[in-house]
Amino acid sequence: MTRTHPHLTQTVLDACHTLAEFTTTPGSITRLFLTPPMHDVHAYLTDWAQRLGMTSHVDAAGNLRCRWEGSAPEAPTLYLGSHLDTVPNAGAYDGILGVVLGFALVEALGGQRLPFALEVLGFSEEEGVRYGASFFGSLALLGTAGPMLDLRDAGGQTVREALTAFGLDAQALPSAEITGEALGYFEIHIEQGPVLEAAGQSVGIVEAIAGQNRFDLTFTGRASHAGTTPMLLRRDALAAAARFVVAAEDLARSTPGLVATVGMMDVKPGAGNVIPGEARCSLDLRHARDEVRLAALPELLASAEGFASERGVTLTVTPKMEVQATPMHPQFRALLHQAAADAGLPHPDLVSGAGHDAMVLAARMPAAMLFVRSPGGLSHHPDEAVLAEDVTDALAVGSRFLQLLAAEGGRHGL
Amino acid sequence: MTRTHPHLTQTVLDACHTLAEFTTTPGSITRLFLTPPMHDVHAYLTDWAQRLGMTSHVDAAGNLRCRWEGSAPEAPTLYLGSHLDTVPNAGAYDGILGVVLGFALVEALGGQRLPFALEVLGFSEEEGVRYGASFFGSLALLGTAGPMLDLRDAGGQTVREALTAFGLDAQALPSAEITGEALGYFEIHIEQGPVLEAAGQSVGIVEAIAGQNRFDLTFTGRASHAGTTPMLLRRDALAAAARFVVAAEDLARSTPGLVATVGMMDVKPGAGNVIPGEARCSLDLRHARDEVRLAALPELLASAEGFASERGVTLTVTPKMEVQATPMHPQFRALLHQAAADAGLPHPDLVSGAGHDAMVLAARMPAAMLFVRSPGGLSHHPDEAVLAEDVTDALAVGSRFLQLLAAEGGRHGL
Repeated sequence: MTRTHPHLTQTVLDACHTLAEFTTTPGSITRLFLTPPMHDVHAYLTDWAQRLGMTSHVDAAGNLRCRWEGSAPEAPTLYLGSHLDTVPNAGAYDGILGVVLGFALVEALGGQRLPFALEVLGFSEEEGVRYGASFFGSLALLGTAGPMLDLRDAGGQTVREALTAFGLDAQALPSAEITGEALGYFEIHIEQGPVLEAAGQSVGIVEAIAGQNRFDLTFTGRASHAGTTPMLLRRDALAAAARFVVAAEDLARSTPGLVATVGMMDVKPGAGNVIPGEARCSLDLRHARDEVRLAALPELLASAEGFASERGVTLTVTPKMEVQATPMHPQFRALLHQAAADAGLPHPDLVSGAGHDAMVLAARMPAAMLFVRSPGGLSHHPDEAVLAEDVTDALAVGSRFLQLLAAEGGRHGL
Repeated sequence: MTRTHPHLTQTVLDACHTLAEFTTTPGSITRLFLTPPMHDVHAYLTDWAQRLGMTSHVDAAGNLRCRWEGSAPEAPTLYLGSHLDTVPNAGAYDGILGVVLGFALVEALGGQRLPFALEVLGFSEEEGVRYGASFFGSLALLGTAGPMLDLRDAGGQTVREALTAFGLDAQALPSAEITGEALGYFEIHIEQGPVLEAAGQSVGIVEAIAGQNRFDLTFTGRASHAGTTPMLLRRDALAAAARFVVAAEDLARSTPGLVATVGMMDVKPGAGNVIPGEARCSLDLRHARDEVRLAALPELLASAEGFASERGVTLTVTPKMEVQATPMHPQFRALLHQAAADAGLPHPDLVSGAGHDAMVLAARMPAAMLFVRSPGGLSHHPDEAVLAEDVTDALAVGSRFLQLLAAEGGRHGL
C-alpha cells in the first residue's frame, strides 16, 4: 500500500548516526548555528541529494535547500524538513530526523514526479542556543530574519559576522525568502515527550503547537533568624513561592491539556537557618488553545499575589515570552489521518508543547507535523532515541501523505 | 530601688561602639575566634576590669575571665557574660553586649562585695564560623572542648595551631575547666528576633532554649521538557518539595511555639522550560519542648515522603543536627521575674530559638538568660541595634537580680 522500502529505515538511522559525528565536541553532539560541523552536514546531505537527482544549495541564511522538481515547471512546492542545529550535548534525532526523512521520502518516490515540487529543508537554526533567539532559518524563508542579524553570541560575534565566517553574505539574506507558490510545509519530528510511548503508539498527528507564556516571579520578604522569628512575624519569601508552585500544579492538573511548570527557584540568602528574604522563580504555561491559557494565567498570578500579600511579601512579575497557539492546517491534518489509517496505524491527535519551525511557516502556508514516539520521553539528552519500527511507520505515513496529496492534484491552498 | 546609675547606660553603649572597631575588616564588624582583633578586645576589657579592681586573665581557651571576689574567700561564683566573637559583617551587640553588661553590673555595685564572687566571662568562640562548630569557649569551661582542637579552618589551620598563634597553649586547655563551686550562670543577650518589639517590651526572661532538628531533604524526580510532558506523566521534584514547604509552614502555624523553616532550596537543572529533576532543601525545626518537636518531626517527614511518592519522586532525608531543648533554671527565672517586677517592668517569658552559651553551661550549673529587645528583629546584620532605654532596663533587672540573689545568701544550688 505504501511505497516505502525496507532498506530505507536503515538508511535513515545510518544517516542520523553519521550526522551525529559532525559536532564541535567529539564524544557528544553539539552543533550550533553556523559552526564548522554544519559544513560537514551540508556536504553529506548534498551528496545524498545529488545521488537522488535533486538540485541543492545553501541559502543566505545557512539553510540547506534541495529540490525534487514536480511534473510541471509551474508546479507549487511542498516543503519538507526540520532543523540541523542541536542543543549542547544533544541526542541524534531532534531536528535532523525530520531532514533525513525528507530525503528518504524523495528516495521512496523511486524517481516518480509529483504534481508539485518537493523542497527538503535543513534549517540552519531553530534551537536558539547560540544567540538566545530561535528560528533564524525558518524566519529567513518568510523574509523576517533580518532583525536577528545584529544579535551577538557569547563571544561577541554578530549573526552577520557569523554568516560571513561561514562563507555566506548577510546582504543576500532577502534572497532566502520563499517567493514562489507554496503548497505547504510538512515536518516530521520526534515527540520529545512521553505521550506516544504511554499510549503504545508509534506516530501521532499534531493538531496544534501550544501557545505559551513565560514569566519570572520575584517574591521579596525579609530574611530573618529561623530560630528567633515566630511564624506569624515572618515574611518568608519561599513560603509564598512554594504555595504558588502548588497552585500552578493544581490548576494544570485540573485543566485538561494545560501544562504549568516552575523550573527555576532561587532562594536568598539560602542558608538552612535563615528565613528566605527572596525567592525568584519561573512560570512556564502552555496550552493548545489560547483561551484556556489566557484564562489560567490571571488566576495563577492572582494566587501568587495573594500568597505574597498574606505574608507581607511583595511580588514582582516579569513577562519573558508570549507565543500564541498555532493550529496545524485542518486539511493537511485530515490527509495525515487518512495516510496513517491507510497504513494500518493508529493515528492519535497530539499537541506539540514545544515550538517548531512549522509554527513559523504556518504564518505563510498550510503546515502540518507528524510526531514519532520518543522512547522514555527523552529530549535534549544524549540518550534520546527512536525505534526502527517507528521510523518505518513514519516513512509509511509520509509516503502515503505525499501520494494522497498528489491524488488531489497538488492543488494550491488545499 | 535599683543600684544602677544613669551614666552606666552610656558607658555600655560607648564600650560596644568602641569594641566594634576591633575587626579584621575595617568598615564592618568581623571578629572570628582567635583572630588578632580579639587581643584588642581583651586589652580594652582588661583595662576596665582593672579600674574596677577585678583580677583578670585570658584562659587557655582564649576566654577573658575577670573576677570580682565575694565577701568570703570560700564564696561560690556566679558567672556572668556572653561571647566576644562575631559572624562576618556582624552587628555591634550580639554577644558583646552581654559581656559589657557584666562589667557594668560589677561597676554598678560601687565596690560592694556580695556573698558570692562574680566572674565576668568573654567567651572566645560561640558563633561557629571559623571552624564550623560552636561553643569552644563555654565547652572549655566544662572541660569538653578537647575534641575540637583538631578541627581545621578554611585555611587549614587547626584550633590547636590557632591557639599557639594567639599566644596560648593547647596543652593547658584542661586548666580552663571550672573546678570551684559554681552558683550559676547569667547571660544577657539581644533577642535576635521580633517578639519583644512586637509586644512593646524592653526585656524578656528566657524560659528555655529551643531544641532543634536540621535536615537536608533531596527530592529526585526526572528532568523533562516543560512543554511536552503532560502533568500526569511528570516526576517533578520541585512540585513535591513545594508541597513539603507548605506543609511545614502549615504545621508550624497550627502548633503553638513551633517554628519550621525551609531556608535553602536548590533546583536542578534550574531552567524555566525544564521540569525539575532534583530539588534539595533544608528543614530547620525548633520548639522549647522536645515532645512537641519530636511529635511534629515524623509527621512532616511522612508528608514529604507522601508528596514525593505521589509524583514518582524519591526522597532522601539526611539528618544534619539534633539538639535537645534546654530549660532555664526555674529558681533563677523566678528571681529574674521578681527583679523585673521590682524594677517596674513587664517581664514576659520568651523562648530562645537560637543557641547560646547558657545552653552549654546549663549542663553544669543553674543557668538563666535575659533578652533585650532587638529593634526590627535584626540579627547577624550590620544594622543590628539596641535602644538606650532597654540597656537601662537590662541593667536595672540585672542589678536587682544580683541583690535578690545576695539576699538569699548566695546559696549553692539554689
